[in-house]
Amino acid sequence: MRLAVVPGDGIGPEVVAEGLKVLGAVAPDIESTFYDLGAARWHRTGELLPDAVLEELRQHDAILLGAVGDPGVPSGILERGLLLKLRFELDHHVNLRPARLFDGVRSPLAEPGEIDMLCVREGTEGPYVGNGGVLRRDTPHEVATEVSLNTAFGVERVVRYGFERAVARPRKHLTLIHKTNVLTHAGSLWSRTVEELSAEFPEVTVAYQHVDAAAMFFITDPGRYDVIVTDNLFGDIVTDVAAAVTGGIGLAASGNLDVSGTNPSMFEPVHGSAPDIAGQGIADPTATVLSVGLLLEHLGRPELAKKVNAAVAFDLSTRDPKATLRTTEVGDRLAALSG
Amino acid sequence: MRLAVVPGDGIGPEVVAEGLKVLGAVAPDIESTFYDLGAARWHRTGELLPDAVLEELRQHDAILLGAVGDPGVPSGILERGLLLKLRFELDHHVNLRPARLFDGVRSPLAEPGEIDMLCVREGTEGPYVGNGGVLRRDTPHEVATEVSLNTAFGVERVVRYGFERAVARPRKHLTLIHKTNVLTHAGSLWSRTVEELSAEFPEVTVAYQHVDAAAMFFITDPGRYDVIVTDNLFGDIVTDVAAAVTGGIGLAASGNLDVSGTNPSMFEPVHGSAPDIAGQGIADPTATVLSVGLLLEHLGRPELAKKVNAAVAFDLSTRDPKATLRTTEVGDRLAALSG
Ligand SMILES: CC(C)[C@H](C(=O)O)[C@@H](O)C(=O)O
Ligand SMILES: CC(C)[C@H](C(=O)O)[C@@H](O)C(=O)O
Repeated sequence: MRLAVVPGDGIGPEVVAEGLKVLGAVAPDIESTFYDLGAARWHRTGELLPDAVLEELRQHDAILLGAVGDPGVPSGILERGLLLKLRFELDHHVNLRPARLFDGVRSPLAEPGEIDMLCVREGTEGPYVGNGGVLRRDTPHEVATEVSLNTAFGVERVVRYGFERAVARPRKHLTLIHKTNVLTHAGSLWSRTVEELSAEFPEVTVAYQHVDAAAMFFITDPGRYDVIVTDNLFGDIVTDVAAAVTGGIGLAASGNLDVSGTNPSMFEPVHGSAPDIAGQGIADPTATVLSVGLLLEHLGRPELAKKVNAAVAFDLSTRDPKATLRTTEVGDRLAALSG
Repeated sequence: MRLAVVPGDGIGPEVVAEGLKVLGAVAPDIESTFYDLGAARWHRTGELLPDAVLEELRQHDAILLGAVGDPGVPSGILERGLLLKLRFELDHHVNLRPARLFDGVRSPLAEPGEIDMLCVREGTEGPYVGNGGVLRRDTPHEVATEVSLNTAFGVERVVRYGFERAVARPRKHLTLIHKTNVLTHAGSLWSRTVEELSAEFPEVTVAYQHVDAAAMFFITDPGRYDVIVTDNLFGDIVTDVAAAVTGGIGLAASGNLDVSGTNPSMFEPVHGSAPDIAGQGIADPTATVLSVGLLLEHLGRPELAKKVNAAVAFDLSTRDPKATLRTTEVGDRLAALSG
C-alpha cells in the first residue's frame, strides 16, 4: 500500500504527524511519500498543483491531506487551484462525512440525544464546477453568474453510493437534502434519481427535506438522520452544521472518494490550517485520526478502521475537558490504544 | 393606510386573524382587504396569482401573508407561481429576518447567551431567479442547470440597506456571508460591493464569513452577530439556523421589502401552513404578530412597532412552558398588552 501525504500548512503538518503515528501503529506495511503543496509552496514558487505532482499522486493507493492555507494567500487561490482541483482531477465524486456524537463529547445542544449520521455529499458537480463569469466588472452594470451543473451520471453514482451505505446500516434510512421547490431543474433530477434507485433498495426508507428545514432539524432533532445524500454546496453547509452539533470541526473527518477506484481517494480533516494556533502543539489531531479510519475502511481494512475508531471513542469518553490538550499526547494515546 | 391580507392555507388564516387583532389594537385606522390565494384557490380554479389580483395588490400600502400550501399541491407550484412571483413582481429585494432570543424562550443551545441579529437577505436575485433547464430529461445523458444571477444594481442596494441598518444599531457591525472562495464570480461582486460601501459607513465594522463557517458559528457563538447581509439562497439557510437557535420558526418573522417604496412590502411569518396542526387552534401566532411589528416599522410607525414587540417580549417572558398554547388566547393577550 502506497500513501501520498500532503501535510500542508499551519496545523496541517502537526495533525498529520499524529494521523501517521496511529496509521503506523495499526498498519506498519503502508509506505508514505510526502508532497509539499499548499500556501508555503505557492509563496515560494507560485505553484499550486503542478501536472507532474498530480501524476505522481495518481500512482498512490490513497492520499492523506492535513490542511492548506495561510492569511497571506488571497481567498480562492488554494481552493480552486489545489483543493477543488484535486477533487475534480481525481474524480472524487463522493465526499463522505460522518457526524457522530461520541460519549464524553460536549455538544452545544441542550439535549443532543444520539447522533450518528453519515453525510454523502456530491463532490464534482453542482455550484462547485467553477462555471460562471463576470460581465462589465466594476461598473454599475456588472453582472456575475454562477452555474450549477448536474448530470444524471454524476447524481446517479452518488445517490447509489448513499443507498449502498444506507442498506448496510442498522436503520437503513436515507434522506435527500435539496431545495427542489426553488431549484426546480436540478431538484427534479435529484428527486427522480432517488425515486428510481429506491426501487433497487426496497429495504431503505427514504425521506426528503429542503435544505433550510434540514439545517433546522440538524439542531432541533439531529437523531432522526441516518444516511444523507446531497448536492455539493448544500453538503458543504449542512456537514458543518452537523459538525457543530457533534463537538465541532476538531472532530470532523472526511473522505473524498473516487468510488470506482480509478483514482486514489483522499482523506482529510474538515478543519482548516488554523494559523492562529499553529506551531503551539495544541491542535486536536482527532479529526485526522478519524480520517485515517475512513482511509483504512476505504482500503479494505475495516477491522483496522474499527480499532482506530474504538480508540478515538474510548479516548474521548475519558478525556478531561479541563486539561490542556497536547497534539502529540493525543496522538500517542490514540496510537497506543489502536495498536 | 390600506393593507392587503392573504391568509392562505392551513394555519395561515388562524395566525393572520391574531396578527390583525394586534394590528387593530394599535392602529385602528388601517383598512384591510382580503385576497384568496394559495393551495385552496389553486385546487378550485387552477389559478396562482392572476394578473388582476397582482394589480390590486399593488394598490395597497403593505401586504400581510399567513402561509400557503397543502400536501395536495406538488412541490414548487406555489413557491414559483405565487410566493416567489410576488417577491419578484413586487421587487422585494430585501428579505428582512430578525433573530432575537427573547427572555423566557428556550433555545436548543446549551449556553445561548445574548442573540440579537438582523439578517438582510437578498430577495430578487442569486440562485432564486429560476434560470436553468434540463437537457435530455429521463435519459442517462440528462443535464440540469441552475444559474445564479447577481447584478451590481441588485447587490449594491441590499448591501447598502444592510449598512444603513447596521449604522443605526448600537453595535454597528455588519457580516457578509457568502462562499467567495468557491463561487468566485458572484463572491467577488459581493465582496467588492461591501468593501466599496464600507467607505461610506466608516462607523460600521465589517466581517466576512464563508457560509459553512457561519452556519457553525450561528450555533457555537451566535452572540457575535449584529447585522448580516447575504445572498438569497445562503440567507434562506442561515436564517433558518438562526430561527432554530432562537426558539424555532414559531417565532420567526420576516419582511419582504421594496425599499424604494414603489411597490407594497409584504410581511409574513417564516413558518409554513403546517397542515398537521391546522384547524386545531394551537398554532403559535407570535411570528405573525412580530411580522406585524415589522410592518408597522416599515409604514413609518416605529412607536407602534415598539409596543407590539414589547408585548411579545413580555408575553414570552411570562409564558408557562407547560401550558397548552391556544392561538386565540395568545392573540388576545398580545392585543391587550399592545393596545
Ligand atoms: C475549502 C473549501 C473549498 C471546502 C469546500 O467548500 O468544499 C471546505 O469548506 C470543505 O468543506 O471541504
Ligand atoms: C417557500 C420558499 C420558496 C421560501 C424560500 O426558499 O425563500 C421559504 O423557505 C422562505 O424562506 O421564505
